[in-house]
Amino acid sequence: MTAPLNDTHDPSLRSWVESAGARGTDFPIQNLPFGVFKGPRSGDQERIGVAIGDQILDLTACIRRQLLAGLPDDLAEACQKRTLNRLMALGPPAWSALRWRISELLRDGESGQAWLRPAAEACLVPMPSVELLLGVAIGDYTDFYASIHHAANVGRMMRPDNPLLPNYKYVPIAYHGRSSSIVVSGTPVRRPSGQTRTEGADAPVVGPTARLDYELEAGFFVGPGNRLGEPVDMARAEDHLFGVCLVNDWSARDIQAWEYQPLGPFLSKSFLTSVSPWIVTMEALAPYRVPPAPRPAGDPPPAPYLDSAENRRAGAIDAALEVALVSARMRQQGLAPIRLSRSNLQHLYWTPAQLLTHHASNGCNLRPGDLLASGTVSGPEKDQRACLLELTWRGTERLELPTGETRAFLEDGDEVILTARCERNGYATIGFGECRATVAGAPSSD
Amino acid sequence: MTAPLNDTHDPSLRSWVESAGARGTDFPIQNLPFGVFKGPRSGDQERIGVAIGDQILDLTACIRRQLLAGLPDDLAEACQKRTLNRLMALGPPAWSALRWRISELLRDGESGQAWLRPAAEACLVPMPSVELLLGVAIGDYTDFYASIHHAANVGRMMRPDNPLLPNYKYVPIAYHGRSSSIVVSGTPVRRPSGQTRTEGADAPVVGPTARLDYELEAGFFVGPGNRLGEPVDMARAEDHLFGVCLVNDWSARDIQAWEYQPLGPFLSKSFLTSVSPWIVTMEALAPYRVPPAPRPAGDPPPAPYLDSAENRRAGAIDAALEVALVSARMRQQGLAPIRLSRSNLQHLYWTPAQLLTHHASNGCNLRPGDLLASGTVSGPEKDQRACLLELTWRGTERLELPTGETRAFLEDGDEVILTARCERNGYATIGFGECRATVAGAPSSD
Repeated sequence: MTAPLNDTHDPSLRSWVESAGARGTDFPIQNLPFGVFKGPRSGDQERIGVAIGDQILDLTACIRRQLLAGLPDDLAEACQKRTLNRLMALGPPAWSALRWRISELLRDGESGQAWLRPAAEACLVPMPSVELLLGVAIGDYTDFYASIHHAANVGRMMRPDNPLLPNYKYVPIAYHGRSSSIVVSGTPVRRPSGQTRTEGADAPVVGPTARLDYELEAGFFVGPGNRLGEPVDMARAEDHLFGVCLVNDWSARDIQAWEYQPLGPFLSKSFLTSVSPWIVTMEALAPYRVPPAPRPAGDPPPAPYLDSAENRRAGAIDAALEVALVSARMRQQGLAPIRLSRSNLQHLYWTPAQLLTHHASNGCNLRPGDLLASGTVSGPEKDQRACLLELTWRGTERLELPTGETRAFLEDGDEVILTARCERNGYATIGFGECRATVAGAPSSD
Repeated sequence: MTAPLNDTHDPSLRSWVESAGARGTDFPIQNLPFGVFKGPRSGDQERIGVAIGDQILDLTACIRRQLLAGLPDDLAEACQKRTLNRLMALGPPAWSALRWRISELLRDGESGQAWLRPAAEACLVPMPSVELLLGVAIGDYTDFYASIHHAANVGRMMRPDNPLLPNYKYVPIAYHGRSSSIVVSGTPVRRPSGQTRTEGADAPVVGPTARLDYELEAGFFVGPGNRLGEPVDMARAEDHLFGVCLVNDWSARDIQAWEYQPLGPFLSKSFLTSVSPWIVTMEALAPYRVPPAPRPAGDPPPAPYLDSAENRRAGAIDAALEVALVSARMRQQGLAPIRLSRSNLQHLYWTPAQLLTHHASNGCNLRPGDLLASGTVSGPEKDQRACLLELTWRGTERLELPTGETRAFLEDGDEVILTARCERNGYATIGFGECRATVAGAPSSD
């Protein structure tokens, strides 16, 4: 079941952390996303924190000061690990209990625990003073293809007469990704080298990609896993989802075009995948759950194993996504990033629960911390295309930047910034923070 | 560089472990493969061992008894872990030093350390008395497609006029596999359910696969990794390879045919992958290294980044592979497994070093314990086809079993057994042990 609404979602809640009430903050007290950070103080130890305004509540420090006393032992232990995996493994009741306690601790006014405030203040760390890390040991990373608009656009370039393959509306298509090269936002993306072949040429050449692209995606972190051989019923799929981050699935389109048949993308993707450091929990997203976009007339309904009343009611997430870009020259000229496209997680053809249930339907075991990415979240409109391949239509319609520069694909020095926000009347607005990275040149060959 | 020949390969070496000298043993003193096992004694602790005849030399016990005194601290520590990853990270000089010491300890006669024998005997555990485990925490699993005979056969079924795609002879084709569902030999394989579509039908149906297949493969374990963004030169690729095991890449052909476009196989493979428990080191394989099979006239040479003099000299491995099958009825009638096919690792179009170097050529970081599988190792001859899809030509040419049963694909109760052996005149014959598993029925739906 999707997480229910409760007192922690009350839009009238205020935190005594001033910046959590600032207009435009991603991290009001109704959000409380989890991450892992390092420094300053407490040695150089990695520790779990919760974002609140421009501060981080250090959970290890909270527990040492007994600010979260009374939590079950396994939960208190999980909060003091260097990754979120143990916490992820515990499941919704534990997550909910923890969220409640953190919410109380940070609340201003009568509903809060005002007498604990001085001690809690001592557990805050200013976010700009620390290094945000990839907080999860990701065992397996799976990248889906859940936007039908993306699939149709890419298909149209390859097969104008037959853009969408016959399996698309039945099967949540996916490929296994590379987990070793998943990095946190801020890590530069080095332009990879590889084999590419110009159309019409006989043989490929080897060199740096000329068609480096981003892909705007969301990533769903698995909570408790399932045993090998035991599928996950749709009715219980959401209990296996911990939370959501932003994912940039960097892609070398020229390498991809040459290598991908017949087994799918490999080196064109595995050089780097960036994720945002803060994981917004499924519980925090409860107010923004909506029915999936209606399927066009004539489309088959989802197979019974991918269907549930709950999924029809609230399986999708209404989260507005944006991609922005700033080039080296724009930075030099002091220009702000420009928005390249905006999209919404609602545009997906498959919901997170459907992705997870399909993934486990053959008995494949998911483990706590596994990452299921959505695939490029393009919407139906032209300005909702969520990668350059689509936006510039394979490079044929170049984008113009405010400096007069143009782009078919990414150039060295370009920085790509992904963001997401959830808004709903009568509820607070929450954000995901950023997933950003700058393109570095290819390593010089020796 | 490929590991050099040394004293540990001397065919005249004999072990005081009697079964290591038995005809037909896979594990003479010239082999010394590594694995991880559990029980009996030393509590229920997982520990690293080396196979010798029908015994296991318990390395933790050896170190506690100071039988390996003088090893560097990090090496001695790595030998006492519950997985092989730390040992794999140390690299060829450490592996070689350890192999030498173990070889000396187990040698009979003057060249050995006869005075240590009683203490070493106390470190032996009979192999049948223990549980052999998956001894490696596999971070990422990659499955290549390195047999051109397999690729051409499969291509011929799909595209009779154009069996081999234009990239095949340039790119070592691969896909990322699923690491969570890799299990050790002996674990039953449950028949997975999924979506399949009969040719000509409009919509798919959901149910147990009717086309369950095995794939005979070898797996290469990564030793020391490379840093993100830093490719691995061909000249150093072998230094990053620890050893080789057998891999059965179970495949549901009907699920695969329906799901695989455009991103490659996913649920048709991720339900289970079996590996053999013993890892034969690259050093043990030194006597059996041979030049790669000559490329047919007209084929392009490997790109410079995939070429080296050493690879041309000895990049391939001469290892004879076999698949055998025993059905439930054959077992009931007391019949021995029958051989379905035999092949050889020499038949691969790409060598292990080429697979590894290609994998890292975009800067993708490999980590100690990552598994690179070869893909189905079919040879040029009909009886060298290494999966049922090829052997029965998509089920059109059924195999006959000694009971009169026939097979297009695997039935419940069938057991598949993969084996491998290296032979060379003037050297000992070594084997890989077995990779076997029995097909269990699909879980009953609730």
